[in-house]
Amino acid sequence: MGILIKNGRVIYGEGFEVVEADVLIEENRIVKVAKNITEAADIVIDAKGKVVSPGFINLHTHSPMGLFRGLADDLPLMDWLQNHIWPREAKLTRDYTKVGAYLGALEMIKTGTTTFLDMYFFMDAVAEVVEESGLRGYLSYGMIDLGDPGKTEKEVKEALRTMEFIDKLGSERVHFVFGPHAPYTCSIALLKEVRKLANEHGKLITIHVSETMAEMGQISERYGKSPVVLLDEIGFFGSDVIIAHGVWLDSRDIQILARHGVTVAHNPGSNMKLASGVMPLQRLINAGINVGLGTDGAASNNNLDMVEEMKLAALLHKVHNLDPTVADAKTVFKMATLNGARALRLNAGVIKPDYLADVVIFDFNKPHLRPINDVVSHIVYSANGNDVETTIVDGKILMLDREVLTLDEEKILDEAEKTIEKLA
Amino acid sequence: MGILIKNGRVIYGEGFEVVEADVLIEENRIVKVAKNITEAADIVIDAKGKVVSPGFINLHTHSPMGLFRGLADDLPLMDWLQNHIWPREAKLTRDYTKVGAYLGALEMIKTGTTTFLDMYFFMDAVAEVVEESGLRGYLSYGMIDLGDPGKTEKEVKEALRTMEFIDKLGSERVHFVFGPHAPYTCSIALLKEVRKLANEHGKLITIHVSETMAEMGQISERYGKSPVVLLDEIGFFGSDVIIAHGVWLDSRDIQILARHGVTVAHNPGSNMKLASGVMPLQRLINAGINVGLGTDGAASNNNLDMVEEMKLAALLHKVHNLDPTVADAKTVFKMATLNGARALRLNAGVIKPDYLADVVIFDFNKPHLRPINDVVSHIVYSANGNDVETTIVDGKILMLDREVLTLDEEKILDEAEKTIEKLA
Ligand SMILES: [Zn+2]
Ligand SMILES: [Zn+2]
Repeated sequence: MGILIKNGRVIYGEGFEVVEADVLIEENRIVKVAKNITEAADIVIDAKGKVVSPGFINLHTHSPMGLFRGLADDLPLMDWLQNHIWPREAKLTRDYTKVGAYLGALEMIKTGTTTFLDMYFFMDAVAEVVEESGLRGYLSYGMIDLGDPGKTEKEVKEALRTMEFIDKLGSERVHFVFGPHAPYTCSIALLKEVRKLANEHGKLITIHVSETMAEMGQISERYGKSPVVLLDEIGFFGSDVIIAHGVWLDSRDIQILARHGVTVAHNPGSNMKLASGVMPLQRLINAGINVGLGTDGAASNNNLDMVEEMKLAALLHKVHNLDPTVADAKTVFKMATLNGARALRLNAGVIKPDYLADVVIFDFNKPHLRPINDVVSHIVYSANGNDVETTIVDGKILMLDREVLTLDEEKILDEAEKTIEKLA
Repeated sequence: MGILIKNGRVIYGEGFEVVEADVLIEENRIVKVAKNITEAADIVIDAKGKVVSPGFINLHTHSPMGLFRGLADDLPLMDWLQNHIWPREAKLTRDYTKVGAYLGALEMIKTGTTTFLDMYFFMDAVAEVVEESGLRGYLSYGMIDLGDPGKTEKEVKEALRTMEFIDKLGSERVHFVFGPHAPYTCSIALLKEVRKLANEHGKLITIHVSETMAEMGQISERYGKSPVVLLDEIGFFGSDVIIAHGVWLDSRDIQILARHGVTVAHNPGSNMKLASGVMPLQRLINAGINVGLGTDGAASNNNLDMVEEMKLAALLHKVHNLDPTVADAKTVFKMATLNGARALRLNAGVIKPDYLADVVIFDFNKPHLRPINDVVSHIVYSANGNDVETTIVDGKILMLDREVLTLDEEKILDEAEKTIEKLA
């Protein structure tokens, strides 16, 4: 019977054209988009004056890091990590991490994210939160061996343990992904082992690559080549690899990524806030590379708002190129939806029959979204995540009229506050 | 009797330190900030779990331009102006402009702006809206003579007519400001006349300066010098001048502005979206120049959200300088509050006894603002204007719990929609 969303403006199809139509959801699929749908439905949502949009796909984050939001800003990266983040992360337990994951899930639901690709520790706990929250999560345990063979083995074990845990959950919404942290924190042995295991188990891989100048220098000193060339030479790349950042890519790197069909998860907010640099978006797009959008962790953003992230992406590349025509509204909207879905091999990110019912509704009855001259432009340039009113994932309503139905908001906020005190 | 705000976290004083305290407002002033204030008050607001902040001062906007929001994005500046904005502006009447001003006022109240510096046409209509809305407005009629002496006289007349209209309103909240549009659209005669009139009437001046490379080229071709040097040579500058943008300032320009105590209104969102360039914020700050923050018009932003604008400012300058320590949270917070007040010679932008009661309350009971590790950081990096719950200007509540008390929201949204249809 499903859900019928009536009278909205619908951002329709792979071209994101705006049409006035009803949207019918049955089971976990969109089954019909048309004017005046008369089929019965269990739940009818009146979307008059509202906008029905594909849900957003956050292609790179560390969802439990909301706990550290605002703890230490405006610092050099290494000072921030070594003196503020790492000492607290060292105290993280499974329970504390789970509190952070709840906070992240809550924030994502409230700002219209329906799917996310995550990398962190205690990912079995995060998997439980994803399952409970109703979100779609692609979860990787962040492996770091720092070249220590003993650690290599331990990290592979923990990854495989996490994979088994998640596979056993048997949820269509929760998936395991291999997550070696980065070429500068992982040995070649670990990276090769990950590639082998991913082939064996048919899993995706995500990894930080070419984020900072410091990383470029380190890899160049150690190996005499760029991180991308290094990974290419050990046979790491494939169309199942999603690299986060890709800020310092040169022409050769870009060619390699394009050849292998690698996806790049762009994180403009984090790259700007940490002053990592400007990712060469135009060159990647011109090379035909699939580019998605991510927020990175809330400790370096400082939120998980994909609606805001689209604006940051558009504005950053316009000013960087001194060209207002680049990174236009539809391009970044597609990065935040369809491109993310493609990277995850997920039939989502689009409102059209047969796609998964991952849908959000924006309330446009607000002065900053009126007059409704251009719906997609308003979402990218004028809106923010607070304007999302309803979030539907896999045909199930997770938030209705700003009220989250799957999680206990007050309890989560409370526990987040108590947890960070314990980590001080 | 006034307003008593109880139990909030207060961003206190010129240093923006966060203290837990009550805030007592009497008439239009803050009279006491202390724990457990027992004085009686007409209205008591419980701010437990909330944050009491100075209201924001938008130091450069064109408030009625919300009508054109999203009408034409991602275009080269001249295409956007000539083919989309100017043809519609040519059809603007006093009534249409007033609808735009209502929309802008509504948006500002809902996102925590308490004072704004505006430049547009039909500013007498805008003045009526400001008076009715309860906001504080500094309003300039944008003068453009394009070197035509007949037009010079007409523009001066319209400015003086606007000045008289506003002065006659006799409102402490509504002020006239002289607004020659820019050195490339105004003759030297007009600019000199404005300087004379501003002295005569004791009014501030605001003007667009050094916004685009095109402007720099045009002025250089016409006069053989930079816009700032040109204005300096005709004796235009003083501490009563607020220039908008200042993107393409060189060292000599910066010295001149510093010497005269000119304020620069920085508009990161607009500069990024129109790809104008990156304003040299660090060099201005190092030269001791007072820098405020503005959104520019909603047609080039595309909203009037000063909370979002603070994040854009911080992130832009960090990545531009490849230095995460610049444009830190307190620096941009000060730009958006106290620095704006200083430019307008207004005793506001700070929560402390004797300052004007221009105060906003943020609702922090939201996942993206928790845990409350750092209040100012959260406002700058994690929040947006939708998180403002209550807006108080001049000791009067304009919005309480997201409901605007001084304007008819539904009617304004409706009329905005109808008006843009007529301007098509
Ligand atoms: Zn990351
Ligand atoms: Zn302007």
